[in-house]
Amino acid sequence: MTDSNWFTLRWNDGAVELLDQTLLPEKEHYLRLDQVEDLACAIERLSVRGAPAIGVAAALGVALGAFNSEADRVDDLRRELDEEVIPRLRATRPTAVNLFWALDRMQRRLHAGTDSEGFTAEALRANLLEEAQGILAEDIRTCRQIGVAGLEVVETGARILTHCNAGALATGGYGTALGVVRAASEAGRKVTVLADETRPLLQGARLTAWELQRDQIPVRVCTDNMAGAMMQAGKLDLVVVGADRIAANGDVANKIGTYAVAVLAKAHEIPFYVAAPLSTIDRSIATGADIPIEIRDREEVARIGDRVVLPEGVEVEQPAFDVTPAKFVTGIITEKGVLRSPYGSAIDRAFSQ
Amino acid sequence: MTDSNWFTLRWNDGAVELLDQTLLPEKEHYLRLDQVEDLACAIERLSVRGAPAIGVAAALGVALGAFNSEADRVDDLRRELDEEVIPRLRATRPTAVNLFWALDRMQRRLHAGTDSEGFTAEALRANLLEEAQGILAEDIRTCRQIGVAGLEVVETGARILTHCNAGALATGGYGTALGVVRAASEAGRKVTVLADETRPLLQGARLTAWELQRDQIPVRVCTDNMAGAMMQAGKLDLVVVGADRIAANGDVANKIGTYAVAVLAKAHEIPFYVAAPLSTIDRSIATGADIPIEIRDREEVARIGDRVVLPEGVEVEQPAFDVTPAKFVTGIITEKGVLRSPYGSAIDRAFSQ
Repeated sequence: MTDSNWFTLRWNDGAVELLDQTLLPEKEHYLRLDQVEDLACAIERLSVRGAPAIGVAAALGVALGAFNSEADRVDDLRRELDEEVIPRLRATRPTAVNLFWALDRMQRRLHAGTDSEGFTAEALRANLLEEAQGILAEDIRTCRQIGVAGLEVVETGARILTHCNAGALATGGYGTALGVVRAASEAGRKVTVLADETRPLLQGARLTAWELQRDQIPVRVCTDNMAGAMMQAGKLDLVVVGADRIAANGDVANKIGTYAVAVLAKAHEIPFYVAAPLSTIDRSIATGADIPIEIRDREEVARIGDRVVLPEGVEVEQPAFDVTPAKFVTGIITEKGVLRSPYGSAIDRAFSQ
Repeated sequence: MTDSNWFTLRWNDGAVELLDQTLLPEKEHYLRLDQVEDLACAIERLSVRGAPAIGVAAALGVALGAFNSEADRVDDLRRELDEEVIPRLRATRPTAVNLFWALDRMQRRLHAGTDSEGFTAEALRANLLEEAQGILAEDIRTCRQIGVAGLEVVETGARILTHCNAGALATGGYGTALGVVRAASEAGRKVTVLADETRPLLQGARLTAWELQRDQIPVRVCTDNMAGAMMQAGKLDLVVVGADRIAANGDVANKIGTYAVAVLAKAHEIPFYVAAPLSTIDRSIATGADIPIEIRDREEVARIGDRVVLPEGVEVEQPAFDVTPAKFVTGIITEKGVLRSPYGSAIDRAFSQ
């Protein structure tokens, strides 16, 4: 980030602090969460969101649970985290795989210490915090690597469409899709961004516009239904979006509306890139059809601030994500470089590097 | 309409009364407008909107101007309407051609009376009201004919996507796209509707859902960015939308987002129909490239009720309409039947019937 006056989330003195994203852009308010349950609720109500950021938040949540535990013995601490803390965090949201990836990693660290007499619950707590802090630091480093890898697909002056927020706010910092934008901008490529507002929760208008403006990267916003007309008018050169989970064949689950953008991009022969860390790739899942899609509440569509925009009794469709088949994806920009079709073997190679 | 407890707009005792569409679905409030300027402002702020309804409103506005005029002589009345009233109404909105069509028709009637001694300003006022009332009555009749014509493209059980509101609220009554839905429903076809919410002003969620619910036609709502995913999931059989202006070659200007829906429909091999009266076809314009597209205010995107959803200083794209090339249009459902490609000759035939 070029503007260091804000952060997405961090560990500070026994608590997780995070910028409450439900209040942006009207209020910049940081939550200080010192209970696992409060952190879990913050993830559920999207005070922190974005696949990598959810992973980091959950990892910090495990550390929080460890420090809050009154267990004196390593075994008791492990049992409490395994049976209470980790399952609670695991149940917050179903689609972003980084959540499960981060919790699995924390769980491995939880069980990694020796059972020797010298290994205390205190040492285990310190290990868990170190692991969580490591996940956060790695996430930012990975985002920067994604940004650099993305330079090969971003030309000078590129007019980039993005959907939702895959930015510093969706990660430990710097961003995935917006990491590509930031790296291009830092490299002097003079890119401009058009952000889909991204209904129902308007992460594009509220978050992407906010963080790019803070970093003085030119950004405009359009309603989701305008992106097609902007492509038709020749106003876009490139699409870069994030991902919540990528299947082994390259199918991409991401914020609802991503699929429509991908179809429109293909129809207008505009390259469509997905930027994501390898931790977003779920090799245990063969295709996008197997990715669980979270269905969220009617109220998120029906009410905006004080305004009721839907007649009482009218129901909505409310999938939070959709799946873009790999054939629409020009490339997946990862910390190991840009993966291209056929994705199955490209993904295998990236993981074995 | 099967529910007769409401109306879109009417002439009543020297004033134009209309349901204020900016307040739906929260409030059903009728405006009583007895000044042309108030009516013009109501059109500009979208208290009444939808191409055919704007035409009817403007026609009633000319009658209103005639009755409010203090002119005693036919010549003076004509001059006042030609130089003040009609230009004011003509300047309200640029895209929907029905506005100009209706005003041209009122202007012809304005100049149609003989200049004989027996023809008074009072008689001219009565003629203008008769003409405006005629336009309103014809509009409803035309919508019903469009509905019947549409029966040939709607199968039993059809799951229909529509965008924005081309319903009773967008016309004198009954609707164009929703006229097709109503006629199919009345014919026992058991159709269901999925309405795009249609940002920025949410005419799909606020208006289409409201009027279909009132008529007990099954309707659900999705955000604009979900329509593609719904097509991908096989949940839609047919798209029917309205139009604000159709060029001589069949290119269709309609609410922003229509073009994206058309591209998505084609990609999923779902028929895409436009329902509109012949008065929406502008044969003076060769292609959609010549249709003027209204650009509306940033605030319509940036603020929803009390909620500011865009950071200060971030600009938006705000075209109110887009143009769908004729090649994406499966057919144009008119009061003279369903027109199909090649549209140039089909339109010529419809006008010469």
